Parts: sequence; C-alpha cells; structure tokens
Amino acid sequence: MARPFEDELVFLPLGGAGEIGMNFNAYGYGPADERKWLIVDCGVLFGRETTSPGVDVIMPDIRFLAEQRQNILALVLTHAHEDHIGAIGHLWPMLRCPIHATPFTARLIELKLEEAGLRDRVRVNPVPLGGRIDAGPFKVEFVSITHSIPEPNALAIRTPLGTVVHTGDWKIDPDPLVGETTDENGLRRLGDEGVLATVCDSTNALVQGHSGSEARVRQGLSALIGALTGRVAVTAFASNVARLDSIAKIAREHGREVALVGRAMHKIVAAARETGYLKDFPRVLDESEAAQLPPRRVLYLCTGSQGEPRAALSRIASGDHPTVSLGPGDAVIFSSRIIPGNELSIFELHNRLAAIGVEVLTEQDHFVHVSGHPCRDELAEMYRWTRPRIAVPVHGELRHMSEHARLARSLQVPQAVVVENGQLLRLAPGPAQLIDKVPSGRVHLDGRVLVEEGAGLARARRALAFAGIIAITLVLDSKGRVAADPALIVDGIPEPVQAAIRAAVEEEAGRHRGRGGDKLKENVRRTARRAAQEAWGKKPVTRVEVIEI
Amino acid sequence: MARPFEDELVFLPLGGAGEIGMNFNAYGYGPADERKWLIVDCGVLFGRETTSPGVDVIMPDIRFLAEQRQNILALVLTHAHEDHIGAIGHLWPMLRCPIHATPFTARLIELKLEEAGLRDRVRVNPVPLGGRIDAGPFKVEFVSITHSIPEPNALAIRTPLGTVVHTGDWKIDPDPLVGETTDENGLRRLGDEGVLATVCDSTNALVQGHSGSEARVRQGLSALIGALTGRVAVTAFASNVARLDSIAKIAREHGREVALVGRAMHKIVAAARETGYLKDFPRVLDESEAAQLPPRRVLYLCTGSQGEPRAALSRIASGDHPTVSLGPGDAVIFSSRIIPGNELSIFELHNRLAAIGVEVLTEQDHFVHVSGHPCRDELAEMYRWTRPRIAVPVHGELRHMSEHARLARSLQVPQAVVVENGQLLRLAPGPAQLIDKVPSGRVHLDGRVLVEEGAGLARARRALAFAGIIAITLVLDSKGRVAADPALIVDGIPEPVQAAIRAAVEEEAGRHRGRGGDKLKENVRRTARRAAQEAWGKKPVTRVEVIEI
Repeated sequence: MARPFEDELVFLPLGGAGEIGMNFNAYGYGPADERKWLIVDCGVLFGRETTSPGVDVIMPDIRFLAEQRQNILALVLTHAHEDHIGAIGHLWPMLRCPIHATPFTARLIELKLEEAGLRDRVRVNPVPLGGRIDAGPFKVEFVSITHSIPEPNALAIRTPLGTVVHTGDWKIDPDPLVGETTDENGLRRLGDEGVLATVCDSTNALVQGHSGSEARVRQGLSALIGALTGRVAVTAFASNVARLDSIAKIAREHGREVALVGRAMHKIVAAARETGYLKDFPRVLDESEAAQLPPRRVLYLCTGSQGEPRAALSRIASGDHPTVSLGPGDAVIFSSRIIPGNELSIFELHNRLAAIGVEVLTEQDHFVHVSGHPCRDELAEMYRWTRPRIAVPVHGELRHMSEHARLARSLQVPQAVVVENGQLLRLAPGPAQLIDKVPSGRVHLDGRVLVEEGAGLARARRALAFAGIIAITLVLDSKGRVAADPALIVDGIPEPVQAAIRAAVEEEAGRHRGRGGDKLKENVRRTARRAAQEAWGKKPVTRVEVIEI
Repeated sequence: MARPFEDELVFLPLGGAGEIGMNFNAYGYGPADERKWLIVDCGVLFGRETTSPGVDVIMPDIRFLAEQRQNILALVLTHAHEDHIGAIGHLWPMLRCPIHATPFTARLIELKLEEAGLRDRVRVNPVPLGGRIDAGPFKVEFVSITHSIPEPNALAIRTPLGTVVHTGDWKIDPDPLVGETTDENGLRRLGDEGVLATVCDSTNALVQGHSGSEARVRQGLSALIGALTGRVAVTAFASNVARLDSIAKIAREHGREVALVGRAMHKIVAAARETGYLKDFPRVLDESEAAQLPPRRVLYLCTGSQGEPRAALSRIASGDHPTVSLGPGDAVIFSSRIIPGNELSIFELHNRLAAIGVEVLTEQDHFVHVSGHPCRDELAEMYRWTRPRIAVPVHGELRHMSEHARLARSLQVPQAVVVENGQLLRLAPGPAQLIDKVPSGRVHLDGRVLVEEGAGLARARRALAFAGIIAITLVLDSKGRVAADPALIVDGIPEPVQAAIRAAVEEEAGRHRGRGGDKLKENVRRTARRAAQEAWGKKPVTRVEVIEI
C-alpha cells in the first residue's frame, strides 16, 4: 500500500477500456492529492443508430481531469486515426495543455483545430520520429511501430517509479511499404532496461496468428486489378496511405490513371505529401477528366468502404454522384474490413452495386486487406520483447481485454489487470491495484451540442422510435375546468391506433367538460396510454400540457 | 411470346427475392387472366432497430394474391423455419387455402395457428416424407433434402408445361445425424426426366466450398466440452434438432446432465418427440434441479444465440435469470453463426459474459457450427443433378442472387434470371421472361397492427429518433386571433435547444397576440425549426395544432 503523500504512478483510462474507439488514457504521478497528469490520445467513437440515434460522434466524459486542468502537463497523440485524435477539437478547451505529436499526425490535428476555430489558440509541438519530450516527472520517448497509417508510435514513458510502454495501435509487418517497421530492437532494449507495465492494444486479441503484411495486399490487389477490364473503383480507409500508394502504383502498372473521389482522400493525400510521404505518387486526375477515359484506363480511389450514405461510393452506387458512374462490366474492390455494426449498411451498398450490374470484390474471397492491429502471435512477441511486470489491456471491449489478459498470463506476465473506463489503477509502488473509481462516462455530440450519455436523451429518442408519441394539450379556464376540446399531436403511431387514442382522450376530456379535477392531467395521460395499449399492444411516450385561459 | 388465352407457367416471388427471410413464392398456371396459384412458403423477416424501430416481424404484402383468393389452390411449406412458416398466422386469413406440410412442420404450424386463434378454422394436411399432392395443374412431389431442421423438403412441381425444382433451403451433408441426406438420386432422376427451372437457395452463393457436416460439429463440440471443468452452457438455434441431439449426447458422454433453458427449446424438443424424432434424447432436468448439481455435472442448452435481450442466455449474462447463474470457471459455447445485423447485440452479450468471468467460445476459434445452406460447390452439384433450362436464384439479397446467377451461367445453365419481389417471370412457354410487375412490398407487424412499409411509419419514427419532436398547440379565438400562450411539448431534444425553441415560439406567438394571420400556423412551425437548426444544427419533427375557443 502507498502511504499518504507518497509518490504513486497511476493509470486512468477515460475511454478505450471498454470500446474500440474513443481512446483517452491518462498517467498520473505524485501523491494522491497532487498528481500531475500526462494524457495519451483524445479520440472519438462513432455513434450508432441502434444505441444513439442522431448522434454522430461520442467522446469520453473528462470532467475529472478538466477540474484539475492546472495539473495536466501534456497531451501526446500516438497517431492520427479519429479514434485517437478526433475529440481534440471538442475537448481541448477543457484541457488547454500543450499538444505533442509527430509531423504527419500534427498536420492532421492542425486541420482539425482549424475546423474547430482553435487554430490560433493551440500550438501543436512537432516531435521527430524517435524523439523525446519531457513533461514533469514523465520522460516520454516515441518508439516507431507499424500500423495502418503513417507515423504510428508507441510511447516509452519513464518515471521515477518505472517505465510504462504504451503501445498505441500497432502490428508487426516486415514490409509495411510506407513508414517504419515496428522497432523491435528499441522495444527489446526497453525490456532489458526493465518495464513496469505494458499498456497494449487488444483489438485482435481474439484472432489467432498474425495480421499479415501490406506487401502481400499489394500483390493480391495487383493480381486482381490486372485481370479486370472495365472501370475499377477501389474503396479503402483514406488514412491508410500505404494502401493508397499501392493502389496508385498498381493502377499505373496496368495502364490506368488514378482519380481520387471523396473529400477524405484528397485531405489525406495532401497531408501525406506535405509531410514527406507519397513522393512518387502518380499525378491524379480530377473526376471529370477521368470520366472521359475508356473504362480500362481508369481507377477510382473512393471513400465509403463502410457504406456511409453520404460518402463517394454510396453516391456512385445510387447513381447520384456528379461525375462518376459505374455499370455492367465494372468492378468495385472493398480493400477494407467491415467494422462491426456496419454490416447491414455495407451489404446494402453491395446490393445497390449488384443492382446496377457492378461486380463486388471483397476480402472474403480475395487477399485485398490486412488488419492494422496485432493478432495473438504478435501480442506474444510484444510481451517477449518488453517483459513487463504488469500487462494492462486497453483499446478493446471487455471480451477483447479479458482474453488479452488471459493470453498475457499464459505468457507468464506476473500481473494482467483488466481495467475499465474511470478505474484508477496504481501501477507503483507495490503490486498493481485498482484504487479508485472516478467520474467518467460518455458524452454525445448531438448535432452541435454536447450531451452527457447519462442524461438519457438517446434513450428518450429510442423510446420515440419504438412507439411514437402522443402530445396532448388541454385548455382549462381559470377555475381549472375543461374549456375546449383537447388538441392531440400524434406521431409514429398507426392510423387506426391514433383514432382509438383520440376517441378515448376526447371522451375522457368530455367527461370533465366544465369541471376540473386534481388528477385530470394524469387521468388523460393514462387514458391515452391505455387506449394505445389496447389497440396496439404498445405504449407510446405520452405527454400532457395545460393551457389556462 | 405466349398468345392471349394460352396456358403459361409463371413464377412470382412476393418475398425472399431480395432478402434472406420472408419467403413467399407463388407459381401460376393457366391463361394470364385466370391463373391458378400454388404458394410455396409463407415466412417472416425479423425487424431491425435501424430500419424499422419497434417492429418485431415483417411480412410480404400479398394483396395481389389475396384479391384472387378463389384461384389459390394450396399453400405448401418446405420446412418449419420462421422465415418459411412464420407469417401463416397473420396471412392465412387473406388466403384461406388448404395447407400441406410434412409432419414435423405441420406440428409447428399447428402451434402457430393455435397462438393466432385459428386452430379450429384451418386444417393442416400432413404429407409423408417423399409424398405427393395434387393441386389442379400442379403435381407436387416432396423430395427429402438436408437442412438445419428436421424434414426439409425440395419440391418437384410438375405441370403440363414442364417441371420446376423448388429447392427450399438445403445443403449436402453425408451425415446429417437427424433426418435424411439430400436425395441425390431423386434429384438426378428429375434431371433425367427433364427440368424446366431450378428455383434455388442463394444464401451462401458468396461462400466458396462446402457448408460442412453436422457429424464434424458433433466431434468438435465433444472435444471442446470434454476439456471443460466448470458449468457449460451451449446456445444454438432451437430448431436445429440434430445439434440439440448432439449436445445432449455429448453431455451424457462427459457425465453431464442436460437442462433446457428457454421456451423455444422446450417447444421444439416436444414437437420433435411428438413426431418421432429424438427417441433416445436423454431425460432433461428442470432448471432448478440442474442448479443443485456440481458445476462439472451440468450442461445448459439455452436460447439466445443472437443476443436477443429477452432470451435465456441474455438474462443469465445479466444475472437476472431466476434459476441459472454462471460465473468464473464456467463457459458458454455459441454453437451458431452470427446473423448479419446482430453483431453488436451478440458482442455486447459476449462482453457481459466476460464481465462475470465466463469464458466465451465461438465458431471463430472452434469447430462448433456449420451452415444449413449450400455453398458454391454444393450449388454446382444441384445444377449438375437437375440440369435445368432456367436457373432462378431466390432466398437471397441482390448481392447473393446476382452472384448465384453468375455461377449458374458459368455452369452452362442456358438461362439464369434474377427476379425481385413482385416481378412476374414467365417460365414457359418460350424463353424465361419478366412479363409483369405486380403490387408487392412489405408489411410490418407493429405491435399487434399490420402496417404497410410504404405508409412511412417506420420512416416517421426514425425521424423522431434522429432529432426528436416539437409539438406546438396554439389557442385562437373565434376570429382566429392568438388568445393564450402556446403550449409546447418537446421530446428528444437537448435542454438548451429546447429553451431556444420555446423562446422563439413564444416570441413569434406573442407578436400575433390579439391578431390572427393566414400563415400563423406555418410561421410558428418555421420559427421553431429555425430556432432548433440555429441552436443545434438539426431539425426536429415539428407539428402545430390549433384549438379554437
């Protein structure tokens, strides 16, 4: 046990320990009542129509840290994926600390700050690859790793109480095509030096074997594209710059010109070029030039691999893209995986492409994608390299983190601790131990307004989606007597049920005509719900208002 | 081309040609204006919170056939899955024709008719396996096949214009454990006799190879269960009687008693026993007896493999099942696949099981499930056996049916026609040809009320889910002048946005106080929406009612 006033090193995830997305990790150092904080990553989770209809993105509730903002020393970003940097524009005003990131990541953060109107207020400090920053008790070294975006970094966080290896998102790929291989020697050296804890990506903890190499994807795509004779559209995550580079080079090999379709494609290619990547990327056509070429001479690189309705590929499939159209003889390659939850949108997109005669080629039958996250054999390597005293799975749902912890224990890591968002884990001194639970949760970006998940707004809208609403207005005179027919606004309810509700409410109000009653409002509400239940078997949201005249 | 008054044989899918589920196929024979109809299957599709919130099941719109009910000769059911028989209780009153099915299927239909209060009005005619029925010009022979339920049948439908092989749901399994193997010789003989069209299952048209054997699943499950030492719960589709039988026998082999958990398990086991299956199924314990046994002596066979929130396994995972509880050291085996769209519910169930320390074992890492539908090599066999002039893919989304048609053409079937719900396909005389589009669509069972999908109720409720509702009531005097403050009922909208809307509406109504105006209602509506848009970036459903006093 730590004594009061004794220095402790703690780990506090506020996001990402319970979901893949919304990564937000904090390391605290010092005595319990005056900890200094280092924050690693600040990302979003994308909303789901099932659980949070009408919500685009979800962020961690960081009020616990915001209230002690003066103790936050730095925000370090491991890489530029939205689930690691996407919340900066929304949450930085609550943190107002210095930001540190490698150049490509820094460039994308700057674009994000610009959109949020914060560009002038925030300085993003660029860190060279393999660079170091000092933030109070934390000495942070960036360790190059491989992932599905340029410049992913693990962090070696040295403190007087030991070193934490925070892996970020990573994989092992001997031939990543763009960027560095995972710095095995650097990680081994950290292991030799002594690692207290490895805080590690759990995304693929349920997947056997290795994630596979980007170089093999290039071969697979080349064989596939070489055999196609019509127009080819390839959709991939825009941030996967190595993939974009592969596809552009394959296009050239097979005599096709490349056109980028979708805003994110242009944005990423520009950011990559500005920071020294894609130096021999071929000239890209604009979409209307590309439309003039014979089908076998063109390749479209499109956004929309997840079936997003407003993205390029979805608009092409619906025939309402302004310049790109596909039809019989053409093919679309999904060089991407299905993010769980997007199955139905993606399959619906496949169906629309099939309807216009386009062939759909996916990773199900062709080697056109590899994951950017470590599978079990790669996780085992990481533990062999870093040999930590403590394994802390993050970046996963509970099912991934539990299995990751089980794996770490099987590899003889002395302690593996599953920690959930808001749990404060003491890493040192003494054995790792959950010592507190701090306020945490999720905040929804609903339209332009931030709403706490706990406020129940998403639940309220799901109730509307389930059984609609009955909104009743009663008019009472100054003595509280019913003075007019009630007004009903009913939405989302079948016609015959509406009629039954109206009849019941009018009868109930009619019985009170010229009379009042304490429980009038509640009686009318119950009458409406009972009528709905009887006619329909469902109870709508029911609200009653009163106007006094 | 057929001449008027000439006999034609037509195929009309009203469900299942565009979705996996809601199967409803009609075969018509005779001159165009007096066709006689044979209906094959009458199933449901399950609703989705994303596309049809609050809707449990979806059925085909069969009004085209219901209007010529006197010409419907028979309804034949191929097998007892819900997507083939689930709509009978709802739609039979529109058809009122004789029903024919083999005994196990007939038993489950009877239970369904009982629930619908139709048991006394409808007679289900039992057909023996391999039996025949005559219905006007249609001579129907039941051909035993294999699927994931007892007594699946293909139908050989002989007419004066040729024979259709309607495969139903099928696969090839040399060792299905319960029931017959697919009658290869019977299908070959049909091919020898001459097949006009094969109307065939497309579910796995995108999957290479073979679906695999139920006997191998039994081996896989036995090896897995034999190595477990805590409580074991296995979840599987209750209708997969061979799987239930395997699991029960494996339990016994390993010294475990079996308890059935969930209503569907009891219902199917009873129906199977009543119709001669599961003769050596072990005695099952009731749940409370099972709870008394040591962990290594018990196996629970549970409903809920798709993460259905009210099913047994979900309740066990949440710790609110009355008699069954699981914890550390126990394991749950998902002996099932993930039906697309259920990923998030199932993963959430896995997460809840992980949270209580239960190990989750799935087909991802263990051989514990095979599909009941034909993969591409099996489809190729079917075309080799039946050698039809025309291939008609059904039981699939467009992506499956298109690929199925492509495969059939590659196997030298002379014609392969992708037909969608409501399209009338003439099979004979002459080459197959789409000759008409009849009224079709989907009907939602919303609560207890049937609602046409086209009526837009699901869309209306999705709009509520996206941005909530503003319901405004204005009180006007007999001259149409505003006579009181308006009443606002606002739901699903963040607090600060509500305040902005209220302020704007009150101001707008206030400006009209004592005055009327033609466009008052519309002006108030626009004011409310504009205020929401400005404060929130989203436009709620906005409705304005008027009370005159």
